[in-house]
Amino acid sequence: MIREVSHSRYLMGKLSHGSDILEAITSICKQHDIHLGRVEVIGAVQKARLGFYDQYEKVYNYFDIDREMEITSLTGNVSLKDGIPVVHAHINLSDADGAVIGGHLAPGTIVFASEYVIQAFEGPEFSRGLDKVTGLPLWED
Amino acid sequence: MIREVSHSRYLMGKLSHGSDILEAITSICKQHDIHLGRVEVIGAVQKARLGFYDQYEKVYNYFDIDREMEITSLTGNVSLKDGIPVVHAHINLSDADGAVIGGHLAPGTIVFASEYVIQAFEGPEFSRGLDKVTGLPLWED
Amino acid sequence: MIREVSHSRYLMGKLSHGSDILEAITSICKQHDIHLGRVEVIGAVQKARLGFYDQYEKVYNYFDIDREMEITSLTGNVSLKDGIPVVHAHINLSDADGAVIGGHLAPGTIVFASEYVIQAFEGPEFSRGLDKVTGLPLWED
Repeated sequence: MIREVSHSRYLMGKLSHGSDILEAITSICKQHDIHLGRVEVIGAVQKARLGFYDQYEKVYNYFDIDREMEITSLTGNVSLKDGIPVVHAHINLSDADGAVIGGHLAPGTIVFASEYVIQAFEGPEFSRGLDKVTGLPLWED
Repeated sequence: MIREVSHSRYLMGKLSHGSDILEAITSICKQHDIHLGRVEVIGAVQKARLGFYDQYEKVYNYFDIDREMEITSLTGNVSLKDGIPVVHAHINLSDADGAVIGGHLAPGTIVFASEYVIQAFEGPEFSRGLDKVTGLPLWED
Repeated sequence: MIREVSHSRYLMGKLSHGSDILEAITSICKQHDIHLGRVEVIGAVQKARLGFYDQYEKVYNYFDIDREMEITSLTGNVSLKDGIPVVHAHINLSDADGAVIGGHLAPGTIVFASEYVIQAFEGPEFSRGLDKVTGLPLWED
């Protein structure tokens, strides 16, 4: 799938201390009527909940990191699922020794301090639906 | 080296299940006549082949990761080498425990599911040629 | 904090072998009068100095990586502190085995080869001042 999209606008700012990163970004997208886009974040979290997709069992397994971590990268996109904006993001986190843990960003990852750039696109609708091969909610053709 | 480049267009989509990530992105760039740009991807791979550049021996050493991994980040650029678009990308991958492995993206990294944004730039030609200090194919002045 | 910003221009290039990454990017921003923006880099370093913020003690602790590493990602932003452009960036680095170490990018991280894209924004002033809750120099409302 290759679609041309066009720039709409940029939103930049910081997320509230103590907020849930995934929910906070999703909420900004809903408030600002962003149906398609990309997002990047750096900062730090108080704790995190990440997912890993088991490609054989076709289920996400989640794990918690119950300590403070730096967000060394967070890259994601915005599209629609059931007509509602959803944020799909992957994250890398580092600890006091620099060791990095990463995965699929899940609710339960709590902001210590986070700086984001969200870029909204205009273009054809990107809508997620079940992909039978992978078992994932991928963009439908 | 500091050059001003300008936005040309965005392509966004998913890569085919089972395709080689580096080849798939390079192919899109060739098909769409993208000579300069940037790329970002999140998703998951069935297996991966990464490189690490030995700065003393001036050779890339490659290693394989023969298991399913999440792509926690993939950042790259597009430029020319011998007049042909080439993609230079670095990747971070996480396993079921969240442990992250990364390096220079090589052919042999196979898509489970991958969502990309490619941004094409217009501007002066960025062409790679051998840099004697590093032994790498860097952009020529 | 949610602010709309607009694209100004892109600078793309390579950093000098042996230069300090954070100083080099900051210097480009100062030279080109960039007060607001985002930055991404891939490449390799000769050595690195990273920080981890202790959220309880409210101090950055720094550690050195005295060996060659790939830059698997570097994501950052540009804003003002005391009226001067400052770059805030987080980095992931991989070693010969692919192991990834990351953190807050500090001076002392030395370029082997590095390719950057800096995007300058125009918009409201983003100025850093002490945030009492976190102890960090965050963007002021």
